[in-house]
Amino acid sequence: MKVVKFGGTSVSSGKQIEKVFNIVMSDQDRKIVVVSAPGKRFADDIKVTDLLIECGEKYLQNQEAEDLVDAVISRYASIANELNLPNSIIETIYKDVLSRLNGDKSKPIHYMDAIKASGEDNHAKLIAAYFRHQGIEASYVNPKEAGLIVNGSSGNARVLPESYDRLYSLREKPGIVIFPGFFGYNNEGEIITFSRSGSDITGSILANGIKADLYENFTDVDAVYSVNPNLVKKPKEIRELTYREMRELSYAGFSVFHDEALIPAFQAGIPVNIKNTNNPSAKGTRIVNQREHRNGPVIGIASDHDFCSIYVNKYLMNREIGFGRKLLFILEEFGLSYEHSPSGIDDLSIILRQSQMDAETEKRIIKRIYEELGPDEVKVEHNLSLIMIVGEGMRHNIGTAARASNALAEAGINIEMINQGSSEVSMMFGVKQAQENRAVQALYEEFFAGVLV
Amino acid sequence: MKVVKFGGTSVSSGKQIEKVFNIVMSDQDRKIVVVSAPGKRFADDIKVTDLLIECGEKYLQNQEAEDLVDAVISRYASIANELNLPNSIIETIYKDVLSRLNGDKSKPIHYMDAIKASGEDNHAKLIAAYFRHQGIEASYVNPKEAGLIVNGSSGNARVLPESYDRLYSLREKPGIVIFPGFFGYNNEGEIITFSRSGSDITGSILANGIKADLYENFTDVDAVYSVNPNLVKKPKEIRELTYREMRELSYAGFSVFHDEALIPAFQAGIPVNIKNTNNPSAKGTRIVNQREHRNGPVIGIASDHDFCSIYVNKYLMNREIGFGRKLLFILEEFGLSYEHSPSGIDDLSIILRQSQMDAETEKRIIKRIYEELGPDEVKVEHNLSLIMIVGEGMRHNIGTAARASNALAEAGINIEMINQGSSEVSMMFGVKQAQENRAVQALYEEFFAGVLV
Repeated sequence: MKVVKFGGTSVSSGKQIEKVFNIVMSDQDRKIVVVSAPGKRFADDIKVTDLLIECGEKYLQNQEAEDLVDAVISRYASIANELNLPNSIIETIYKDVLSRLNGDKSKPIHYMDAIKASGEDNHAKLIAAYFRHQGIEASYVNPKEAGLIVNGSSGNARVLPESYDRLYSLREKPGIVIFPGFFGYNNEGEIITFSRSGSDITGSILANGIKADLYENFTDVDAVYSVNPNLVKKPKEIRELTYREMRELSYAGFSVFHDEALIPAFQAGIPVNIKNTNNPSAKGTRIVNQREHRNGPVIGIASDHDFCSIYVNKYLMNREIGFGRKLLFILEEFGLSYEHSPSGIDDLSIILRQSQMDAETEKRIIKRIYEELGPDEVKVEHNLSLIMIVGEGMRHNIGTAARASNALAEAGINIEMINQGSSEVSMMFGVKQAQENRAVQALYEEFFAGVLV
Repeated sequence: MKVVKFGGTSVSSGKQIEKVFNIVMSDQDRKIVVVSAPGKRFADDIKVTDLLIECGEKYLQNQEAEDLVDAVISRYASIANELNLPNSIIETIYKDVLSRLNGDKSKPIHYMDAIKASGEDNHAKLIAAYFRHQGIEASYVNPKEAGLIVNGSSGNARVLPESYDRLYSLREKPGIVIFPGFFGYNNEGEIITFSRSGSDITGSILANGIKADLYENFTDVDAVYSVNPNLVKKPKEIRELTYREMRELSYAGFSVFHDEALIPAFQAGIPVNIKNTNNPSAKGTRIVNQREHRNGPVIGIASDHDFCSIYVNKYLMNREIGFGRKLLFILEEFGLSYEHSPSGIDDLSIILRQSQMDAETEKRIIKRIYEELGPDEVKVEHNLSLIMIVGEGMRHNIGTAARASNALAEAGINIEMINQGSSEVSMMFGVKQAQENRAVQALYEEFFAGVLV
């Protein structure tokens, strides 16, 4: 049994939904279909979710928003029209949207969550209607009815463990189940949304709940690439990678699949297959627990920028028990999370995303470090990039560090930082932001020239 | 004006003290002479300080220790005899030792400090007597009289800043000043010892106090070597290195000069010259603020073993603000100091000296980490070695990491950890202990073959 999830572009028009229908029908194991709200049909198009947010905000201010409501409904109507669906489904959706907009505004955050979630919720109803219209047994299932119970705050819902047992009974439901992504209900019966890209999370939770054999995640690319295709022409596609490799890559800029969404599937050991709605015969990329290691130690190279480092130096620092902990505590009091903390004997650097720290905060942090830790020197360096080379095959591979640092040296790139030693599946290099692209290209050349991934 | 310090082997016999005399006399800038207690004359000899400790412990238990007292006194007597000194100096020393042994035992730690310190104190009196016997104006100066005031606990004295001003007046003292190393007095007039090798510290404090032009530290080697001479045959000698380089090297196993002793000289910007009492014409090694960079980026390679790593893995760790800080706090509560903490995205390792943590403590720490931080996995790896390659020239040298990691790869050594990025003068590699020596040799070969340091 498979859970199949379709993203916003995969359900953005009647034509796209026909593709979805054909994909689901072509494999009888495809039982649970998770759908997003209608996404963009072309570059300048507006997503239904964004229209809904605008509507909700107007209503919260007691303003009229007839045009916006029309825009939402006409997106569904044009899809229903393309698919030759009877008008009743649009009436259902129209009533539902109006009822939410005119609902209880005493808790604005819950009000907005309910409106946002209608995008997925109503589209699931429409798509279920289309399947039935095609003569297929199919039903829309609401997350509350199915037992998808969450806690947490708006945009940050967390599934409760008991949900998984309840969701298991979806297996017994006759026909195809069409399930809206992006939200669950708390124990008070209120809608709480997941983070953006939350339909990926819904699919992963359902895959865990029904103990699926596979979670297929349909998007609009043929595969996960081994490197950013804006930096390297026609990069190798990755056929198979592990959860840990995916997580390391998505940390440093690979945005194909939301890393939080991996957790439920990972916990149940269910493989994830990323595929292309527009080219379903392509094999896509499988995310698995273990894979065979072929073609060298590295599976992907990712990079991310806008990091800074806070460097602290104090003679005999390493004899002071608690120095590092106190330094991290100061950052924590400013609400900053850090990425890495390479250390020398008498010095320590903290690498963090620089967007967290404006000039004023930076000054205050430096002042506190001087006052509380009595260092000899504190300095902040801006505009660093982190480059990750990722691969389970690196674990016991002698010479990977040598190959990587050689490739960088030959490209004339100074390594500001190397962090290797904790993660067994990645190695990290810090370089100046201006050299990031060149560094990635040099590493790709070293590890992928002539290699089939 | 120079401060000259002589270590235990340099003052272990009359013959050695004659060398000391000649060294001091050969340069009229050598004004302040800091001396240790008599050290070993041959491999199986016993240091006077060790005899004194045994004496004191017996006396503390109200036992007789006539043989031990005799052994102490006869060491001084044989030196005095070799140097043809009158018997009066031995009477002075004997009285002093007895008076300390029969002193107030109500504070055993202070009692022991006073006895330990007598080794240096009495030897300074003897050496001053010898200088005068040779017709040279010279005087023994006691640290209390000179104003060397400290606080802190036994074996961990810390000089008080006001000492420096008082010590300045030693410049005005006529003739040569012979000053005992290893101890100072607190404001209550009690003797407090520095850490072992504390005479190096005394010399450094005096150099700072009198604003010396140079602090000469006489020991029994011609120079600081670029690598452990037990691992590499006839390694290159280091002519000149910076305070920071010396500190990094002495951290990882270079024991020539006590790193804490560098601080006072470093603070006053006074160069330190390490020289050989038995070969005073050798240039020795200078420790300076800045040096010229010649002969490649690396000045020395050091290594140390018996480290372990605590590896902690938790999915989405890097989103948890405070995770690293909480982990360090647990170690701190067990009184453990850590050396480094390389991190991945979802994992963090803590590298520490394994002698701090017995099997029982290790179990308790792992338990607390599981309970308080909810990790997916915690594991401890033992018997790691850290290898430091050190050199100010590495700072902006493209390719040093590449050369080092290549050399290790070619020697078939797996790099468990690389830590580069905070210190600008060193790069650290973690390897399995069994591969430490081979790794050091491979790195030496890479950076020093054909290079004059």
